[in-house]
Amino acid sequence: MASSSSSSSSSGTASPCGACRFLRRKCTHDCIFAPYFGSEQGPAKFAAIHKVFGASNVSKLLLQIPPHDRPEAVTTIAYEAQARIHDPVYGCVAHIFTLQQQVAFLQAQLMEAKAHLAQNSNIENIFESAQTMMNMQENTKQKGVFFPSLS
Amino acid sequence: MASSSSSSSSSGTASPCGACRFLRRKCTHDCIFAPYFGSEQGPAKFAAIHKVFGASNVSKLLLQIPPHDRPEAVTTIAYEAQARIHDPVYGCVAHIFTLQQQVAFLQAQLMEAKAHLAQNSNIENIFESAQTMMNMQENTKQKGVFFPSLS
Repeated sequence: MASSSSSSSSSGTASPCGACRFLRRKCTHDCIFAPYFGSEQGPAKFAAIHKVFGASNVSKLLLQIPPHDRPEAVTTIAYEAQARIHDPVYGCVAHIFTLQQQVAFLQAQLMEAKAHLAQNSNIENIFESAQTMMNMQENTKQKGVFFPSLS
Repeated sequence: MASSSSSSSSSGTASPCGACRFLRRKCTHDCIFAPYFGSEQGPAKFAAIHKVFGASNVSKLLLQIPPHDRPEAVTTIAYEAQARIHDPVYGCVAHIFTLQQQVAFLQAQLMEAKAHLAQNSNIENIFESAQTMMNMQENTKQKGVFFPSLS
């Protein structure tokens, strides 16, 4: 059952934070979790983190991070936890594998496109050379039509 | 101090596995960690996992995975743990961000290359049309030289 402690969490309310609500413990004014786990949605978010990492490990981790970096840390920890619950074998590493494959595929496509571009550039040069040659031949023929007057 | 239990780990030796050596506990024949953490390199590998996830959480996680998937699970868990120790704020999510940026960059490059290819294809078509036109003009001129005999 959720604690109905009258101690204040950092949100300034009498309600325990989402983590303390989940852990059924008293939420103190210096609770490390309170800024990141609200009383309402917090318990569900914290449940995954607690299951995968453990409250104690996450608490120690957050304490070694400067306060301004903690929101990002909680976001990435929550993401990893959710991913591990969704895919117990690969967790968020599945996402890394997918992205690595996507990078390899795009690199191959880009190389192919660049090879085509280089080929087209050669064809364009050949066309331009042919065009120049034809223009030169055309000019020679036209000049040949008007014989210089021998007067 | 590392346990010097005489109980057999699954490797069939009297040495405790790397995880049990790290945890300083007796390694039983059904130890969930023994197949993945050798007696020598195992303790260092397990230390990161224990620090980030906790031995108990990882044990529960492995028990809910079919045995043939456990080596992959241990590999990804070890990777996540190492990444979180290396980068406490982002962990392996930093790798995901980097790969996402790489994908976005490659997609932009590929779009640009395809746009060039499409442009070149148009230029090529214009060259080909011009070439055809010139050939037709040339043929008309040549035919004009040889007047049909009016005999």
